[in-house]
This record gives sequence, structure tokens and C-alpha cells, in this order.
Amino acid sequence: MKTENIGLVGVGRMGANMARRLRDRGWTLSAVCDSKFKSAQALAKEVGARAVRTPAEVAAASGSVLTVVSDDAAMREIFQEGPKGLLCHAQGRLFINCATVSPDVHREIERAAKRLGALSLEACMASSIPQAREGSLYLMTGGSAKALQRARPILEDLSCSMRHIGPAGSAATVKALVNLVMNINTAALAEGLGLGAALGLDGTMLREVFSQTGAASRVLTTDGEDMQNREHSCFFSAAHAAKDTRIALELATALGLDLPLATATLGQFRRMITLGLGDLDKSGIAELTFPGRAAQPRVSPAAPRRIRSKAKR
Amino acid sequence: MKTENIGLVGVGRMGANMARRLRDRGWTLSAVCDSKFKSAQALAKEVGARAVRTPAEVAAASGSVLTVVSDDAAMREIFQEGPKGLLCHAQGRLFINCATVSPDVHREIERAAKRLGALSLEACMASSIPQAREGSLYLMTGGSAKALQRARPILEDLSCSMRHIGPAGSAATVKALVNLVMNINTAALAEGLGLGAALGLDGTMLREVFSQTGAASRVLTTDGEDMQNREHSCFFSAAHAAKDTRIALELATALGLDLPLATATLGQFRRMITLGLGDLDKSGIAELTFPGRAAQPRVSPAAPRRIRSKAKR
Repeated sequence: MKTENIGLVGVGRMGANMARRLRDRGWTLSAVCDSKFKSAQALAKEVGARAVRTPAEVAAASGSVLTVVSDDAAMREIFQEGPKGLLCHAQGRLFINCATVSPDVHREIERAAKRLGALSLEACMASSIPQAREGSLYLMTGGSAKALQRARPILEDLSCSMRHIGPAGSAATVKALVNLVMNINTAALAEGLGLGAALGLDGTMLREVFSQTGAASRVLTTDGEDMQNREHSCFFSAAHAAKDTRIALELATALGLDLPLATATLGQFRRMITLGLGDLDKSGIAELTFPGRAAQPRVSPAAPRRIRSKAKR
Repeated sequence: MKTENIGLVGVGRMGANMARRLRDRGWTLSAVCDSKFKSAQALAKEVGARAVRTPAEVAAASGSVLTVVSDDAAMREIFQEGPKGLLCHAQGRLFINCATVSPDVHREIERAAKRLGALSLEACMASSIPQAREGSLYLMTGGSAKALQRARPILEDLSCSMRHIGPAGSAATVKALVNLVMNINTAALAEGLGLGAALGLDGTMLREVFSQTGAASRVLTTDGEDMQNREHSCFFSAAHAAKDTRIALELATALGLDLPLATATLGQFRRMITLGLGDLDKSGIAELTFPGRAAQPRVSPAAPRRIRSKAKR
């Protein structure tokens, strides 16, 4: 039996697909809100929920609230104690926070929730949109045993694998490291394939050789073909990759660690933003390293227009 | 039936294990030489060959000659036409060149071999020592169809997978790209695991999470545990990683491509050399990124001595 009404704050593609999955699994979706009200309305209609204007209304209508917003500022905004914020109706609620944000934000929110009689759990997602829809996310949790216990039935319907990392903030820390390595590997792959293209090698052959050798990686599987074909429909944007890489670098800097690869990778994703390519998928970093693409307009001025946007596998 | 006597020039661990494998498969090893004559003597005794002082003597005694030397200079040295070099007895020979060297060197040698009535094939190995011993190398070949045809029975006994890339030099080009991506991914992993250690996270947990997510890579499997445990016995040295990365960067520079990740990676492997760590395995790059290791002597002056050297999996 599904004992909680679930609310959603943040109707991006991840949040929307998690809501669809939960509805499919028999949960009642109570209320959804988003800074774009039309997005909230569309999803609400689809999953049988109510679209509301404020996080406070979501909390008022729900036992558990999933939050899937974009960054630290958005998290602090929705978790206000004022009349519009989630913490305005905190007593007895469970907040499950799925955004990739700084570890400190998770700790702040857990403290505030506790003070107001609510539970808070971080549930970092190390997967993408298709996995959200299919309930096969890889989830890392951080928070109290009590919050985890209450969230478990919901999270089990969203994930194929859950790993409890430790206290609030710890999952975000691990997620930052996952994304750091993923982003660097993505930038690396773009350099290898880009240089291969410049040397006149066949990209399909090169990817096949990479897959059999020490160059193999998860991002080769997820992004390699897209880099070759300029298929950069956004599943994880370059702007997000820049943000995550920056979070990890700030952690490193605070500890006095010098991470030159992370620094170079942040530089590349920032360069994409500067070139107006920040909304492309992270695979779009290939636009910087393949000959005749976006970063080299004098070689091929029409190149960026050829970027395609069909659905990703 | 094994129709060729096989000679070997370059008795490193790769060359020696390839010779052992060929002997196990019934080939006759005729003569071996190395700049370290004692290495040649030891291997010669083991595989029933003759240890000789010069490449010329290897060519004189062999139908096919495997060359497995360290760099461009060594290749040019052994392929001299003078009285000590392989090309002194070229007529009718097949040279199979397994070193990772510049594409141009393969092309030079093929031209010289052809002029002197010999065949030359590049056979780049994208695997390491255990695979050499077991005959399960991943081989990429470059050269003429005739050279490939003659080399095939030998190469099939050394490899689990062979891929013909194209003309002489093309396999070296692909290999340079493989190693470029592998080296960057290795440097990336060292940053992720090093930052994790600095944050007090458990390395084994972190590697397990990496393996399930976008941070997964072949080098995570081959080098992750070794980075955590400071197990840097050399299978592919940092000095070699620096060399390969430089080869790829030179190709890129010649084409006007800017590869900031490759540049940062070359910087890291060069830093290892500067710190006297160039003979460690490439996994030793973790010495630069983990707190309290070699790159931070003031934190832990005794750290480098704790590097272990038991055999790698």
C-alpha cells in the first residue's frame, strides 16, 4: 500500500519522469510546482495532480515532497520558512532532495527540517532521464536512518540500485566526484575522437578500438557516437557539467589540492558557455575539439547549424 | 607447421613474454638481442635461442624478426643499414614492429625495408604484459596486405583480437589516440580518488560507486585499486605515458588543434618524472593527487617509501 501522497517541486525532465514512474507504480501525486507554471500544469494534468504556485502549497498537500531543482540558490529558495516555502508546512513531512547541489546545502536543509519536525534525505541520482522514467536510477542517499527508512518505498520504485553513503551531504560529495571524473572523461574522449577526425581516421573504427582497450569508458558508450554525429540533444547540459566541475574544484581548493585536469575541464565547459553552447548536452564538448566545428568558425562557419537534436538512445 | 624462425630485438617484459608465448606455441626462436646483453642471455637460455650482440645477427639468423623497443631513437638505431643493423640482412625478411613509436618511423622503416627486399608490418599492442604471456594481446596492424599475410600465423598466436587499421603508421596513430584517452582517464581517476581521500571518503566505496556510474572506465578497473593502495609496480610507466601523450599532442599541434586536457595530462606525467617517479606505473599519478603522498613531502616526508611493488593482477 502506498501510504504517502507525494508532491513534486521542480518539473524538469528528471522530475517529470520520476513523477510519471511513481504514478505508474500506484503512488498518488498530490501537487506539483515549478517556476514555469505551465510546465507544472502540463505534468499535473498528466499524472492526476494539482498544479500549484508555491512550494508551500505542495508541502501543505503532501506527506512526502520530492525536490528536483537546478542549483543551490533554487534549493534555498524553495526551502524558505516564509509563506511560500516548503518549510512553511514542515511538521511531519519527508523531503527527498534529488538535485545535485553542494553538500552544505543538504546539511543546512536537514538542520532546518529537523528543527521544524520534518525529515530530510538527500537522494543523489547518478543516472539520466531514461532511467528516471523506467525506475532504474542509481541512487546515493545521505541522511538519517529514520529519513531513509521512510523514503525507502518511494526510492525503491525509482531505482535499480540504492547506496546509502552516510550523513546528509555525503551523497552530494560522492556525486560531485562521480561527475568530476565523468566530465573529465567526456572532455578526454572529445579530444581523442576530435584528433582522430583531424587525422582522417574513421570515427566508428576508432570508437570500436577504444571500446576494446584502455581508452574504454562509460562515456564512450553514452557519448561517443553522439560526438561523432554531432547529436547533442541535452540530457546533461554543458552548463551543468561546468557547475558540477566547479563544485568539485571548490572542495579541492578548500583542501589545498591542485587538480589540473579538473581545471582544464572546467575551462572547456566554460568555453562552451561563452560560445553559446552551454545548453547542449555535455557531449557537445566535441564541438571544441573536432576540426571544422563550432569552436573553429573560420574553417566551417555553418557548422553549428548542423548540430542535430533527435532523441538520445 | 611453423615455417619461420623468429628473432627478437628488445628484451623488455613485453618482448620476453611474447617470445615465451611463441615458444609455447611451437615456434623456433632463433636469436635475441638487447642493449642489455645479460637480459638477452637470460631469455635466450629460457626459450632455446641464441643471444647475440647486434640486431644484424638476429636478422641473419631469422626469417621473421619481432622488434619491441622503447622509442623512435631505438627503432632507428636497430634498423640501421650498417653492419650492426637489422637492414644489413634485409632480403626476404619480415620485420614485425611492436613498439609504440611515431607513425613516421613506421613509414620510414617500411620504405627502407621495401627498397632492400624485405617486408615490414607495424603491430601495435593495446594490452599489457599478462596478455603478452597468454597470447591474448589486442593487436592493431598497419602495412601492406603481403606483410600482413605473412605475419598472420605469428600474430594469431600472440593475440585474441587483431584489427588491420590501414597503411604503415596508421596503427601507431590509433594507438597514440588510445593511449591519449587512457592517460587522460588515468589522470582523471587519480583526481577523483585523491579528492575523495582528502574528503575522508572510503576509497573502496568510491570505486564501487564509480564503477556503477558515468565515472566508470577501463582504467578504473586496471588502476583504481592500485591508486588507493599505492601499488605502482610498473606495467606501463609514467615516463611512457608522458611520451605517448606528447606524440599525440604533437600530432594535434601540427593540425592546429588545441587539446587542453592532453596538455594538462602531459604536465602531470612530466611532473612525476621531475619528482623522480617516472619509473612508477602510470597509476602512480595518484601520488600527485592524494593528500600526504609524494607530491606533498612536507605533509608526509616518508610517503614515497611506502609505495609497494608486488605483482599486479
